[in-house]
Amino acid sequence: MREAFHHDLAKITDELVEMTRMTSSAITRATTALLDADVHLAESVIEGDRAIDRVRENLDELSFDILARQAPVASDLRTVVTSMRMSMDLERMGDLARHVAKVARLRYPSSAVPPELRATVLQMGQVAERIVAKTGSIIAANDVVAAKELEQDDDEMDALHRHLYASISSGSWSPEQAVDLTLIGRYYERFADHAVSIAARVIYLVTGSYDAIAQEDSDLTDEA
Amino acid sequence: MREAFHHDLAKITDELVEMTRMTSSAITRATTALLDADVHLAESVIEGDRAIDRVRENLDELSFDILARQAPVASDLRTVVTSMRMSMDLERMGDLARHVAKVARLRYPSSAVPPELRATVLQMGQVAERIVAKTGSIIAANDVVAAKELEQDDDEMDALHRHLYASISSGSWSPEQAVDLTLIGRYYERFADHAVSIAARVIYLVTGSYDAIAQEDSDLTDEA
Repeated sequence: MREAFHHDLAKITDELVEMTRMTSSAITRATTALLDADVHLAESVIEGDRAIDRVRENLDELSFDILARQAPVASDLRTVVTSMRMSMDLERMGDLARHVAKVARLRYPSSAVPPELRATVLQMGQVAERIVAKTGSIIAANDVVAAKELEQDDDEMDALHRHLYASISSGSWSPEQAVDLTLIGRYYERFADHAVSIAARVIYLVTGSYDAIAQEDSDLTDEA
Repeated sequence: MREAFHHDLAKITDELVEMTRMTSSAITRATTALLDADVHLAESVIEGDRAIDRVRENLDELSFDILARQAPVASDLRTVVTSMRMSMDLERMGDLARHVAKVARLRYPSSAVPPELRATVLQMGQVAERIVAKTGSIIAANDVVAAKELEQDDDEMDALHRHLYASISSGSWSPEQAVDLTLIGRYYERFADHAVSIAARVIYLVTGSYDAIAQEDSDLTDEA
């Protein structure tokens, strides 16, 4: 029983890590699509999101199956339930990458990002990519130290996000540009928030405590 | 065992319905705070969100306990797992009401909503309130018919959302106004999306099928 359980658990971990890979690819390509106004790349991200959803569905079935067949208790039960939540976070991260790609497609052949803000959006994309790559390692290794450090990357994202909003609010953009950039900023920020949630869940699994890391939806108005 | 299980399940349902009540109150007061620039009301929504989070935490503990002590299978297991997801949706709806309240607080003593768009935002608040009230009834009665009808209310929210964005994009707003209104629109839209998710979960529990209702994050760019 225990052996079967640990085999199933390893499978869950593998699939979660695979989801981080797919999500990393999605956000990276979405950022490029946005900055280069590449509609084909945008389409590929939008289409590719279904594959992420399918991995999530399979993972859910596997988890459900484990609960039904093996009736785990204590930390084993906690691990399965928590994995189901991590897969929800990762699926949502895939959705957010798709949203970024949709803005790119909507404004094609123009870019939704004006030249003055390209560097900021590029950096948000890079931080997002780094955060999800780290999330994969954190899940694979149950790495609490790295999980706690992820908050720093999220702080970097928050700083970029604040910079972006300040630039939008103080600049002379058209309302349409302001709408696009506001949504783009929100998508990257939420992407990072979900990664931080996953890190918090790993910390919870290993230490039993949720306090070690903040889980709030980063909120721009907090800083204002 | 079965009797204890059904008692616990009734408790879960009660708490979920209680969360819909709290969330309904939060979004309604947040809308008023936003339109009246009432900073005290905004504060009360922001503070009150903790109470919603606490109900969620208690619900999670109860669900975890049921899984550990009673090891439900088949439809009973499905019910418990699905309830854990509904509570996540409801907690998130509370967060979104808090976000609306925070925009109100940020712009006090001004209102973030210009007079020309008050009626639209008021309607979004009313639709949100109606949707979450219906969600409570749907959960309480496992009402599949009402759950399917909820999509119509969500369509109404999407139409208001599109109208709001079109007004922002074509109007002569300051970038700051455009940012505020874009975020407000997104918060109400996501609020309704989570209610639709809950309705879809009820349909799934009763019919075993997820196909009966669309669950996509409504996306503005789809209509463009």
